[in-house]
Amino acid sequence: MCDVGPRDGFQFEDTFIPTDLKVDIISALADAGLPRIQVTSFVHPEWVPQMKDAKAVCERLPARDDVTYAGLVLNPKGLERAGAAGLSHVDLSIATHDQHSRDNANRTVEAAAAQAEEMVRRAHRQGLRVQMGFQTVFGYRAPGDTPLEQVVEMSRHFAQMDVASISLADSTGLANPRMIQKRVRAVQGGIGDTPLVLHLHDTRGLGLANVYAALQCGVDRFDTSLAGMGGCPFIEGATGNIATEDTAYLLEGLGVRTGVDRARVGAASRRIESFLGTQFPGKGHRLPPVSQPSGPSA
Amino acid sequence: MCDVGPRDGFQFEDTFIPTDLKVDIISALADAGLPRIQVTSFVHPEWVPQMKDAKAVCERLPARDDVTYAGLVLNPKGLERAGAAGLSHVDLSIATHDQHSRDNANRTVEAAAAQAEEMVRRAHRQGLRVQMGFQTVFGYRAPGDTPLEQVVEMSRHFAQMDVASISLADSTGLANPRMIQKRVRAVQGGIGDTPLVLHLHDTRGLGLANVYAALQCGVDRFDTSLAGMGGCPFIEGATGNIATEDTAYLLEGLGVRTGVDRARVGAASRRIESFLGTQFPGKGHRLPPVSQPSGPSA
Repeated sequence: MCDVGPRDGFQFEDTFIPTDLKVDIISALADAGLPRIQVTSFVHPEWVPQMKDAKAVCERLPARDDVTYAGLVLNPKGLERAGAAGLSHVDLSIATHDQHSRDNANRTVEAAAAQAEEMVRRAHRQGLRVQMGFQTVFGYRAPGDTPLEQVVEMSRHFAQMDVASISLADSTGLANPRMIQKRVRAVQGGIGDTPLVLHLHDTRGLGLANVYAALQCGVDRFDTSLAGMGGCPFIEGATGNIATEDTAYLLEGLGVRTGVDRARVGAASRRIESFLGTQFPGKGHRLPPVSQPSGPSA
Repeated sequence: MCDVGPRDGFQFEDTFIPTDLKVDIISALADAGLPRIQVTSFVHPEWVPQMKDAKAVCERLPARDDVTYAGLVLNPKGLERAGAAGLSHVDLSIATHDQHSRDNANRTVEAAAAQAEEMVRRAHRQGLRVQMGFQTVFGYRAPGDTPLEQVVEMSRHFAQMDVASISLADSTGLANPRMIQKRVRAVQGGIGDTPLVLHLHDTRGLGLANVYAALQCGVDRFDTSLAGMGGCPFIEGATGNIATEDTAYLLEGLGVRTGVDRARVGAASRRIESFLGTQFPGKGHRLPPVSQPSGPSA
């Protein structure tokens, strides 16, 4: 599991979260056993003021061998900043639906892919590991309106460039378990041994059903966010990523070892909720703790 | 799908919902294509003041051949009242976990089952159809702490009494897909052709993952509530049933015909939210409408 809350969650908050608190939450997630944390994004501070302290956050991350810290980068300038901030892992992300690419980044998917290719080369020259992410893979305006062949071809192409992993995002939360299985299997067929990550949103409540469907295809890496923080820039009123605590509860119930201490994540969730004076849509962080039975499933 | 919101949802609201509005919501759900609606419960008005107008609600239900209206009854007095109110379908519900039975109804599971047996006989003599429901089938205090053999034996017993259906409730939202499949299959093995209903709560966000797992076992009847209204009397801060709109979205995405018009359900959800001045945890009713693609899944 990779907690993307400090990036995908925090970025939707209007209230600036002080750098101290950001680092505290990231440290708490590391202490809770999250093996990977997306800690910030290197976007222009005028677009996302919440991320203006990206460098300061990175410089104050607790040194740990057992946690991968990654930063989101969307353009060459961001890549440069991520390297300068001392990160060794960067997450790139581009559109796969032409209209989405035009609406969101004012360019074609082809242009975005060409730039990403150049960025991957540059990152590799700098010794950075790259996760290549694709947005709205399961639909932009309607379920499945993103051309699957394009996603498969792009995944294959970047896998051949030796990226560390490929990430498929259901940015709009339109996926369903059947579509997950169909599209995941198609992409798996093209990327060989390159690890596949799913980045799912719980926009319509199907997030964990989609995790369950993906597990059946052998997917074993998921992005989550503490308390289900986050949103979607293209859908008014949309909720965020699948919640870290609830995903861990699902996985434990299925006998999958996560290494994640749900109670500790929950404490971090309540802390950020308390600071922001809000309630996020995740469930488990507000409930009394329950343990899964050890041994075979009941 | 059976919308239990007018009972399992409304009963958790402190503000009395006027009978007019209750009937309007039920009518809207019928118009939206819900084939079954649990419209009220016949409990003592001092315990659940929200349900004190049970008879008045029943007397004003729109006459429709295509909708089954059911009332929840928990004791012989309630059964008598349901019959007098003109209902033809009653939903009985008893505990399956001894401690839960003692905590909640101050009696053993054995005593509850004996009383239910007598009530089924009486209901059948009156020409009523009975759905026999079992509570906390997937755990009371911890996942799976309810003895499965007891659930299987009780299910078999009531199926032999020719009840219309058997319902298994995850009252505490502790189930996970693996437990769902194990327990559903065990119960299916004992009840022959008696239809099986799952009553799932989304307490920890796993509700729709559990629906998906149950579909794989051939379960095709689910209780839901508009907007995911509801709660759990035994868990402080727990959310309610799986949401009607989101369950329908999942089912449509899997190519299952529900006959439910999500937009119409959503309008009813927003109306009750507006009246109560709150937001329920379901997702789809607050989002712009999306249609599933017709034809094969994308």
